[in-house]
Amino acid sequence: MLLRMSTLLLKTLREEPADAEVPSHRLLVRAGFVRRAAPGGYTWLPLGKLVLDRVTEVVRDEMAAAGGQEVSFPALLPREPFDTSGRWTEYGDLLLTLQDRRGADYLLAPTHEEMFTLLVQDMTSSYRDLPLLLFQVQTKFRDEARPRGGLLRGREFLMKDAYSFDLDDAGLTSAYDRMRTAYQQIFRRLGVEHTIVAAVSGAMGGSASEEFLAPAEVGEDTFVGCTACDYAANTEAVVTPAPPARPVTAPAAAVHDTPGTPTIATLVELANERRLGGRDDWAASDTLKNVVVVVHHPGRTDEIVAIGVPGDREVDLKRLDAALAPATATLFDDFAVRPDLVKGYLGPQGLPIRYLADPRVAPGTAWLTGANQAGRHATDVVAGRDFVPDGAIEAAEVRAGDTCPACGGGTLTIRRGIEIGHIFQLGRRYTDAFRVDVLGADGKPVRPTMGSYGIGLTRAVAVIAEQHHDERGLIWPDAVAPADVHIVAAGRDGQIEAALSLGATLVRAGVRVLVDDRPNVSAGVKFTDSELIGIPRSVVVGRRLMEGYAELRNRRTGDRQELPLVDIPGVIMGRLG
Amino acid sequence: MLLRMSTLLLKTLREEPADAEVPSHRLLVRAGFVRRAAPGGYTWLPLGKLVLDRVTEVVRDEMAAAGGQEVSFPALLPREPFDTSGRWTEYGDLLLTLQDRRGADYLLAPTHEEMFTLLVQDMTSSYRDLPLLLFQVQTKFRDEARPRGGLLRGREFLMKDAYSFDLDDAGLTSAYDRMRTAYQQIFRRLGVEHTIVAAVSGAMGGSASEEFLAPAEVGEDTFVGCTACDYAANTEAVVTPAPPARPVTAPAAAVHDTPGTPTIATLVELANERRLGGRDDWAASDTLKNVVVVVHHPGRTDEIVAIGVPGDREVDLKRLDAALAPATATLFDDFAVRPDLVKGYLGPQGLPIRYLADPRVAPGTAWLTGANQAGRHATDVVAGRDFVPDGAIEAAEVRAGDTCPACGGGTLTIRRGIEIGHIFQLGRRYTDAFRVDVLGADGKPVRPTMGSYGIGLTRAVAVIAEQHHDERGLIWPDAVAPADVHIVAAGRDGQIEAALSLGATLVRAGVRVLVDDRPNVSAGVKFTDSELIGIPRSVVVGRRLMEGYAELRNRRTGDRQELPLVDIPGVIMGRLG
Repeated sequence: MLLRMSTLLLKTLREEPADAEVPSHRLLVRAGFVRRAAPGGYTWLPLGKLVLDRVTEVVRDEMAAAGGQEVSFPALLPREPFDTSGRWTEYGDLLLTLQDRRGADYLLAPTHEEMFTLLVQDMTSSYRDLPLLLFQVQTKFRDEARPRGGLLRGREFLMKDAYSFDLDDAGLTSAYDRMRTAYQQIFRRLGVEHTIVAAVSGAMGGSASEEFLAPAEVGEDTFVGCTACDYAANTEAVVTPAPPARPVTAPAAAVHDTPGTPTIATLVELANERRLGGRDDWAASDTLKNVVVVVHHPGRTDEIVAIGVPGDREVDLKRLDAALAPATATLFDDFAVRPDLVKGYLGPQGLPIRYLADPRVAPGTAWLTGANQAGRHATDVVAGRDFVPDGAIEAAEVRAGDTCPACGGGTLTIRRGIEIGHIFQLGRRYTDAFRVDVLGADGKPVRPTMGSYGIGLTRAVAVIAEQHHDERGLIWPDAVAPADVHIVAAGRDGQIEAALSLGATLVRAGVRVLVDDRPNVSAGVKFTDSELIGIPRSVVVGRRLMEGYAELRNRRTGDRQELPLVDIPGVIMGRLG
Repeated sequence: MLLRMSTLLLKTLREEPADAEVPSHRLLVRAGFVRRAAPGGYTWLPLGKLVLDRVTEVVRDEMAAAGGQEVSFPALLPREPFDTSGRWTEYGDLLLTLQDRRGADYLLAPTHEEMFTLLVQDMTSSYRDLPLLLFQVQTKFRDEARPRGGLLRGREFLMKDAYSFDLDDAGLTSAYDRMRTAYQQIFRRLGVEHTIVAAVSGAMGGSASEEFLAPAEVGEDTFVGCTACDYAANTEAVVTPAPPARPVTAPAAAVHDTPGTPTIATLVELANERRLGGRDDWAASDTLKNVVVVVHHPGRTDEIVAIGVPGDREVDLKRLDAALAPATATLFDDFAVRPDLVKGYLGPQGLPIRYLADPRVAPGTAWLTGANQAGRHATDVVAGRDFVPDGAIEAAEVRAGDTCPACGGGTLTIRRGIEIGHIFQLGRRYTDAFRVDVLGADGKPVRPTMGSYGIGLTRAVAVIAEQHHDERGLIWPDAVAPADVHIVAAGRDGQIEAALSLGATLVRAGVRVLVDDRPNVSAGVKFTDSELIGIPRSVVVGRRLMEGYAELRNRRTGDRQELPLVDIPGVIMGRLG
């Protein structure tokens, strides 16, 4: 492959694109790899398309090596299978739906669990036909409320989705482990630094699941690690250890006038000032904060619910959503229409709505909390005595320094990351929904169990750019670079011809070459563009051409080396290995 | 690549699928290459995906060789650019549209003229940036009223669409010719017999255009050839030579009672019987047939129009649609609400609706036609004297034996074919719509002119199957076969191991191998499956394995050859070249 910049569809930009929020987006647009075409939709320009294709090939290769078989489903699907699985409703506003000319309901599939399940139902009949590991590389559509970060969260993106079908749990575990290893190998080959964390499974259904997160400040996910053990989890998946139930030792609850204390801070200050319950050491963690939210159940009426968390913690709406999935929640703020909910002075005792509490609100714990009367709070409100939550919920924020729920010894650290892969043990949610059985070895029907494994391919390109750049531009890893070598003809006096001739020599040897043969562009602009585009190594054919020399540059290290032009092919091929 | 049938997702069918109308569809389903997943939507199974990928690679390869640069656009696009081009409306019911969560209008792009034009506007500024030839390989969506023929006409299909941008007509012609040559090369490599025919450009707009048609009885297109010259055209594009205007020699028109003659046949019989106008040699070609149709103008009110054709020809609704594009027409049959249109007795003289006539209805020609009164016809109704059509229209059927419009000497033959490629000289329709200019060499703005070039990739697979099969199954050309060699282990006594070992040897040499290593399947079933699947050559490892022999079979010729097993790799690699 020889690409000539004189004819390449490429326009590099000196200025930052106005709508670009993250480095990968800024650089991929500035270097001419992608261009915005629609809200949440990007056009892949020639250089970008080459990178995307290389990323895709690495993924295909490892999927095949892991025993995966590639298929391809339509994206435009009828409603019925998604009604059967419940996802037509559960997916909510994220689902892009349409009607055909006959008025029949269709959707643009966000993922294909239903279709893979139906295919396996159609194509298999005996235990001999399993296990199967099937995958596809496909454009997916999701109606994101806030597309962001360029390729990081779009409404249309390329995804590799894979599904395993096994006869039993041991088979599923084995397929899951094989995919986990394949994903590690994929991200290693792509040069993506990543952490595997425990995850919640969201709208897909199922049980065990892990995410591959690329640590990045601009990531939408936060994840924890432990200072003492190897525990790692998406904060959405962090499970708060419930303290053991304890005997009630607190006196009866007492109501106090606490005027002007609608917040935890004001309450704690006043409680200490007035020595409520005879104490002046009240802390926020002694109080119970009750936050009212509206829970949006897909396909059903909204519900108003109160969430109780220790007063020193906020409710984390992402954790709350993960706990409520497929339902979602927003803060309730229409207290005017619900005079029975006393804003700022809510307590769990006798609340007229469903009450879900943090696991720390264990039976026997006593709290300072609202008295459900304006300007009044109650002390010694005891869980299990004065109120019984309708359920526990993981909605309190996770904080750096929290005790590790896994080892109980270390403390948690928190980082941000970008989700680049997700592996699930789905179990039988979909085979149950579609009543998929194969005949077992003993002649009895066996219901297969499923795993689901996804990698966002367009997102992976953005993550690579996010992890591999400097202030001058992109620095592609060898495995995905749009070319192996960027030959820059610095001047016009025979240098363009020499650059093209060197390029032709390299191409014959199987090297991918980009040549900057633009006749009317200065050497300075060419060098700047070359650093922006980020091919791992470049050859500058400049003034010393007349002495038979050119300069080999390494984009990552900045190393430069003058070499006889005739030696350059040998040196490059040696380094490409 | 080594595929093992013991684990491959494959189920061959002995019975014809109930919904399959054409050989390619029947065989691709029976042989386990595709499977219906949705109305007009197919799932590509592993063997089919391999063929589709190989077809795509051939197309990519030739596009790149012709100077094409690959990009990739979103499929989900906002309405605005398609409003600017007019295609939001013109495309009519074929367009799949939807609204996002904010109620904004989107569409699934049927082709991407608008987006390529906007991209070039965005990325170019000077004449130096042109010419450009850009292409993409993308899933397209069209809401076909009647998806048919399996992959031949689906609602979701893979297409390579390409667009050229040039500064002047000479550049466009050169790009067009280059693409024409590339397409010939592509179809030659794919083993697709094809004919290039003149075409109309339909809803794309533009002027010169040609189609690549694969001759096939099941094709939806009909095309003509000439017995004497190299004229070839889609019947939709056949231009009827208009005879020269002639002086009016006919007497004044005269009205006759012709009761019970609502059809041409009954009219001619009665006209001869009653010697209308003193003649008894009336033929259908002397009569003027007037057919009333409803013209559906996209985005506007329907219009009732009469079409006049010589009475010996039918109105061809496909030719009529092509002539009216982007409007479409259906037969008008609600004469009850239009008593001013006298069914069966219509004449062009004084018609209350727009009248479009066949080119043969030239000024000075005299016709026997309806008198616009029930049971009456008129003789000597002269074009240009008694009526003047509101325009000419190509709507009359084209018939085998018609005089060639190109050479005037030969006559036309008619065949059916499947459209597999289409090349257009679009001109400036889109660059005008989006006001795209680049700065010319003389400092003045230049408006680029465009070409558009498409190949249906999924359809190409079906066409290859249509042209390469026999009664026993598919016979893939080498260039697109899912594997190069199918090794069939006929029995179990070491034959499976020998087959796998031979496969491994071949794979190491770069050969793509499918091995039938199923332990519980009879040799007969394996042979039948092998012929159905249609790998060009197979190796049967059977009883003579113990003597060190296997049999090489050629799927196309049926040739069989017993060879020492150790010689087989050499023989195969020799034949694969």
